[in-house]
Amino acid sequence: MAVLDRRHFVRSIAVAGAAANTQMDLRAAEAAAPPDVTRTLAAWVVRSRAADLPVAVHKEATRTFLNWVGCALGGSREAAVDIAISALSPFAGPGQATVLGRKERLDVMHAALMNGMSSHVLDFDDTHLRTIIHPAGPVASALLALSEYHPISGRDFLHALVLGVEVECRIGNAVYPAHYDAGWHITGTVGPFGAAVATGKVLGLTEQQMMWALGLAAVQPVGLREMFGTMTKSFHPGRAAQNGLVAAFLAAKNFTSSDHGLEAKAGWANVLSISCNWDEIIGKLGRNYQISLNTYKPYACGVPLHPTIDGCIQLRNQYKLTADQIERVELKVHPMVLDLTGKKAPQTGADGKYSVYYAAAVALVTGVAGEKQFSDKLARDPAIIALRDKVSPVIDKSIHEDQVRIAITLKDGRRLEKFVEHVISSVQNPMSDEQLETKFLDQADGVLPAVQARNLVGLCWNLEKLDGAAQIAKAAAA
Amino acid sequence: MAVLDRRHFVRSIAVAGAAANTQMDLRAAEAAAPPDVTRTLAAWVVRSRAADLPVAVHKEATRTFLNWVGCALGGSREAAVDIAISALSPFAGPGQATVLGRKERLDVMHAALMNGMSSHVLDFDDTHLRTIIHPAGPVASALLALSEYHPISGRDFLHALVLGVEVECRIGNAVYPAHYDAGWHITGTVGPFGAAVATGKVLGLTEQQMMWALGLAAVQPVGLREMFGTMTKSFHPGRAAQNGLVAAFLAAKNFTSSDHGLEAKAGWANVLSISCNWDEIIGKLGRNYQISLNTYKPYACGVPLHPTIDGCIQLRNQYKLTADQIERVELKVHPMVLDLTGKKAPQTGADGKYSVYYAAAVALVTGVAGEKQFSDKLARDPAIIALRDKVSPVIDKSIHEDQVRIAITLKDGRRLEKFVEHVISSVQNPMSDEQLETKFLDQADGVLPAVQARNLVGLCWNLEKLDGAAQIAKAAAA
Repeated sequence: MAVLDRRHFVRSIAVAGAAANTQMDLRAAEAAAPPDVTRTLAAWVVRSRAADLPVAVHKEATRTFLNWVGCALGGSREAAVDIAISALSPFAGPGQATVLGRKERLDVMHAALMNGMSSHVLDFDDTHLRTIIHPAGPVASALLALSEYHPISGRDFLHALVLGVEVECRIGNAVYPAHYDAGWHITGTVGPFGAAVATGKVLGLTEQQMMWALGLAAVQPVGLREMFGTMTKSFHPGRAAQNGLVAAFLAAKNFTSSDHGLEAKAGWANVLSISCNWDEIIGKLGRNYQISLNTYKPYACGVPLHPTIDGCIQLRNQYKLTADQIERVELKVHPMVLDLTGKKAPQTGADGKYSVYYAAAVALVTGVAGEKQFSDKLARDPAIIALRDKVSPVIDKSIHEDQVRIAITLKDGRRLEKFVEHVISSVQNPMSDEQLETKFLDQADGVLPAVQARNLVGLCWNLEKLDGAAQIAKAAAA
Repeated sequence: MAVLDRRHFVRSIAVAGAAANTQMDLRAAEAAAPPDVTRTLAAWVVRSRAADLPVAVHKEATRTFLNWVGCALGGSREAAVDIAISALSPFAGPGQATVLGRKERLDVMHAALMNGMSSHVLDFDDTHLRTIIHPAGPVASALLALSEYHPISGRDFLHALVLGVEVECRIGNAVYPAHYDAGWHITGTVGPFGAAVATGKVLGLTEQQMMWALGLAAVQPVGLREMFGTMTKSFHPGRAAQNGLVAAFLAAKNFTSSDHGLEAKAGWANVLSISCNWDEIIGKLGRNYQISLNTYKPYACGVPLHPTIDGCIQLRNQYKLTADQIERVELKVHPMVLDLTGKKAPQTGADGKYSVYYAAAVALVTGVAGEKQFSDKLARDPAIIALRDKVSPVIDKSIHEDQVRIAITLKDGRRLEKFVEHVISSVQNPMSDEQLETKFLDQADGVLPAVQARNLVGLCWNLEKLDGAAQIAKAAAA
């Protein structure tokens, strides 16, 4: 439910930047596919050099990776991950790679599956807003597991991560929204391309092999939107990572596939989407990078709540507010907020994710809104309940979906106001490095000792200079 | 090429039996899906008992299995299988299960992948003519690998095989031809359902778990028709087997999925097909069995050549013909035969698969048309070349696609005639047990010692009475 809503929300705020994407897609679909989409993409990937990447792209890749590691730690003790490890480890190979935040070591393929699952299971991972792809899951999960088997320098790791994200998001741009609207969970259907390209680059595939890897990825899409709300949703990016690795390793040994897996009449795009804008895949390659458009969720709940949480935390910190000072919290919100998150008296942490009353209160009291702030314990906390009941949201049609207008009246008569114009984690207002680090440490809390978590953050920021990215995997084991 | 052609051929001969399938599909698509397709199917599978199966169904399941084992042996030394084992065995787990016809033992999942590939790589496996699904590949590959890890009696094995084939073919019936025409390789897209149901039955899944297994299978379709002619085609049924096993093992540990994976708006059928006849999935469950409609290819080449080969072998055996007796071979054939298999002077065995001249000659000389009869050596054999040049096919529009009219003139002046009304391996004219056994032994030749192959045939025929189906896997190791 939360995710479906998120989609509509995200699409409307993304449309301005995407320049009427839908119409472009439909026009493009009328034209025949260019004959060499797969080859053009493969050739570009094979020729790309780490030195080609702008510094800002490298930086965003580091932020993407750090956020992904934190999410994988945060989700590592969820039931879905426990079950998957228990069900599949009897078939796993040598302990080649780390399951982040846990003590188990599995073969590269199974480690990629588990890390892809844990990084997505709390719906707290990164988002490419234009397509709602969660780009890191499939790509970083495959790459990091691979790094413990096949050494990868930090610099090459970041380069491959950028390429994998580029390819999956470009393919996503080409078929969005038709492909998503049809019911595919796009992260799992484009993810195998991203994982195959990233790991194939590291394995040194030739252009021909890279084309085959794309073809092998094309036949292994994963994920239907019907599974949202079940454990199977988190399986999608994990299996996508695994499928991409399988594709790359097979192609590296000259397992043949089509040279036209993307564009052929019975190829991926035509079979999985009623429209495709081919230029989105092969136009301006290397002139811009999709990872620059990646965003990170600051709060462990649906996007409609984010502006309110954002503004409440800002006011709390600016005025050093405590709950007992507050008389009244008035919110002017977009109509969707009450539609989707209008529960007045949530009884559990999970219910709290559907309550703007609870979200405002917990943000004001704790200054954070990670997974831990949506616990059953806090949902029953008298101080939070008292404050929750002082929150009065009203609909204001002039308020955009990524905005909120907050007015807090204090018991001493002061009135504090905050207008959030662009919620944090939009492309216009990204999370700062510090905020990403705070999110990371909050997710690692209870999974890794604090000293280990701080050390791991340092390694992530320093990834570009590491001799081996595998250091990070090893440092993330419980 | 051969396979695409085969599709058109098969569809036209299957239409009579399928009662204007296309129109039924389109009408059905206008109606909303019944609310509980997944539950109905799961409940039926969970309640089904081996004793419910008619004897003839058990018998056909045995024939399906024997044919599949032979095909897996026959394909076991192909390059695609060599490469896949080489590329993926570094990640494989304990040597739990046999790769048929080889010495490697891999974990259950990888063994299923390899056996699924080898059984399909020569395009010589079984066919459900109405949908062109190759039913055994995904289901038997998953089941046999599982039997070496989780003991399965021969009787339970056959029962699970029947159920798996039933589910994959029913789902295929519901979406064929729209789904196939869209570009999906149907064996790989319905295969995960078959494998999940068969192995889930053996693992004792509850109704709820079986629904989840179907949901997990739904998110893992494999295969695009664009890959025909490449190694990736054989990957499809193998990966489908593996995906079904993953689904069953996860569901067995209560990994949750949707209860409506098949029929939901964003479920498998609506996302992967523009039409679906739901009644084909849940109507008359247990009143007929799709495995009864399974057919086996007698010849290792495209279907258009089969009537000619069939008739030539019959004449050869009936009159104990030798090549030097023959003056002239006249064929009246369907127009497609010359369109698709009109090469007059093939230089290689692979080319021979596109030559009705060569096919008639090799059938008359050897009495067989297995993979070995399409070798480079035989394509250059002077006796076969001499006879090949005496073959004169002419188009006759009164000849149906599964027919041929043959007239052989001997040097002594005799004229021998044969009209093939229904080619062997149609549902109307199935291969006999003896013919299946001959095909099996021909495929095993060069892979297993003759004594071992004969023993293995005996075990396959006797499967129903075996305490453990795993015996067969072990007896099929090189």
